[in-house]
Amino acid sequence: MATYLTVDLGGTKIATGFVTLDDAGQAAPVVEDLRSVPTEAPRGGDDILRRLAALVADRVRDRDGLAGVGIGSAGVVADGTIISSTDLIPGWTGQRVAETLAETTGLPVGMVNDVVAHGLGEAHHGAGRGHARVLSVGVGTGIGGAIIVDGRPVTGAHAVAGHIGHIAHGLGRGVRCSCGTLAGHIEPVASGTGLATLYNLMKDDAVAEVASGKDVSDLAAAGDAFATEVIARSARALGEALGGAVNLLDPDAVVVSGSVAGSGAPWWDALRAGFADGAMALTRTIPLLPGALGGAAPLVGAAVAAAQAVG
Amino acid sequence: MATYLTVDLGGTKIATGFVTLDDAGQAAPVVEDLRSVPTEAPRGGDDILRRLAALVADRVRDRDGLAGVGIGSAGVVADGTIISSTDLIPGWTGQRVAETLAETTGLPVGMVNDVVAHGLGEAHHGAGRGHARVLSVGVGTGIGGAIIVDGRPVTGAHAVAGHIGHIAHGLGRGVRCSCGTLAGHIEPVASGTGLATLYNLMKDDAVAEVASGKDVSDLAAAGDAFATEVIARSARALGEALGGAVNLLDPDAVVVSGSVAGSGAPWWDALRAGFADGAMALTRTIPLLPGALGGAAPLVGAAVAAAQAVG
Repeated sequence: MATYLTVDLGGTKIATGFVTLDDAGQAAPVVEDLRSVPTEAPRGGDDILRRLAALVADRVRDRDGLAGVGIGSAGVVADGTIISSTDLIPGWTGQRVAETLAETTGLPVGMVNDVVAHGLGEAHHGAGRGHARVLSVGVGTGIGGAIIVDGRPVTGAHAVAGHIGHIAHGLGRGVRCSCGTLAGHIEPVASGTGLATLYNLMKDDAVAEVASGKDVSDLAAAGDAFATEVIARSARALGEALGGAVNLLDPDAVVVSGSVAGSGAPWWDALRAGFADGAMALTRTIPLLPGALGGAAPLVGAAVAAAQAVG
Repeated sequence: MATYLTVDLGGTKIATGFVTLDDAGQAAPVVEDLRSVPTEAPRGGDDILRRLAALVADRVRDRDGLAGVGIGSAGVVADGTIISSTDLIPGWTGQRVAETLAETTGLPVGMVNDVVAHGLGEAHHGAGRGHARVLSVGVGTGIGGAIIVDGRPVTGAHAVAGHIGHIAHGLGRGVRCSCGTLAGHIEPVASGTGLATLYNLMKDDAVAEVASGKDVSDLAAAGDAFATEVIARSARALGEALGGAVNLLDPDAVVVSGSVAGSGAPWWDALRAGFADGAMALTRTIPLLPGALGGAAPLVGAAVAAAQAVG
């Protein structure tokens, strides 16, 4: 048993908690004493890192015998540094986060991208447990992903491997992706935001616009046939794109989590139908598994990153 | 220096040759004494393996001091056995090819899928040389691919990783793929066969049908504007699909070879434009490199597989 202070740093909040992992892998991870503070992203990267270091120092003092610190952070992470970040967190690029936290705490620090942390958590202790090659797909406001092979994240040549939201699908053609392209990515029509976009694109003029994917889910739950159809179209497209992705990657399992993945059986049925259609005979049998850790996945994954940093 | 007998076994012919690799990696591979016999696929897997073993025994007798035998074969290969194959070679599934050739020759045998052999050759001794993570894409009658990381093929959970022809693209929607789907794969509109399919789908009734991708290339080379447009559409779609694939895989380089890749600058220009549009800012810089080994790639890759089997 080893306990880690873990951090999940996103554009809106910084969550922290203590995660205890069973080294033997028998007991489920224990996540305790969760806290959350606003990121206050507009204050900029230097300010965020200063506050993060103070917060981590503070929390480390609360608990004896910590084995290390794990952090999953927004942005592209390589060697404990943010090598690229969107404008959502100005000045986050270039911050040497792991080094700062190691100096502050005197503890080993493991750091990965937040989406990778989510995948690491699910692969080691969640739905992907026991599978050697896991493709983790998070369908929330956007669509993120991570590839975990033999327990380690596959980061690629530029630390961006796993961006499953940015693979091609015809349904996305002409719909602007968060990465800027109009060529047709799956994210802008299959994320939560994408559900709302697709609804607004497909609807008659007489139907009112929706503001979010949750609006579409709520309408469908209330029996609205058109919202139900939009969800089916969106999920089927995502399934087809994932079917193509597994023909390329051939993982043992695909773990699908995030708020949209929690929207119910019609979404999953369409996802599975699209997947069966896009996958080949030998990959069609790859299980699509709902994430098992919920919101705890990124902190559990951060703890795994910390444990891997310890060695 | 070590010399291997190498085999490239496809649906129509069995090519063999001696390949000498420089262990130090300085000299280019030398491919000698190429021969080719018909596969005679309809005679079935047992008969093919019997003739292959006799052929290999015969050729091994021709050359002293061989270090091993390498074979790239059509079908899905795992542990030296064909675990799945199309109806093009009936009865090929289940054949324990590597074991048979090892018993016949008394030499170490390395065996991979033929498309993987092509990728191994290009990654080690061709356009991908010096790149740690190579995505190899072969655009010929169909579209095949292989992922080579740190010199070794990534085969995945079911030995099918790398099937880049079977990833999603909207242009393929409704066009039947060789794998059976109508959901929209890139192969049926971007392979050589796919070029002809796309031409015939897009043309006016007054325009005559074409029979092959070469017909389309020949028309374009002769100045036909419509054929030129079809090639641009097809190559752009493939580029977009590859752009999405590198967002997921993040390789150091993409090597593109095969007959269609040899069709000239307009095809490459459209491929690169589509790739730039489908890739993200951090993956757009990944080089798209024309294959450097031509038709020798599968035999050179088979020699690499043999060298890896030797140890």
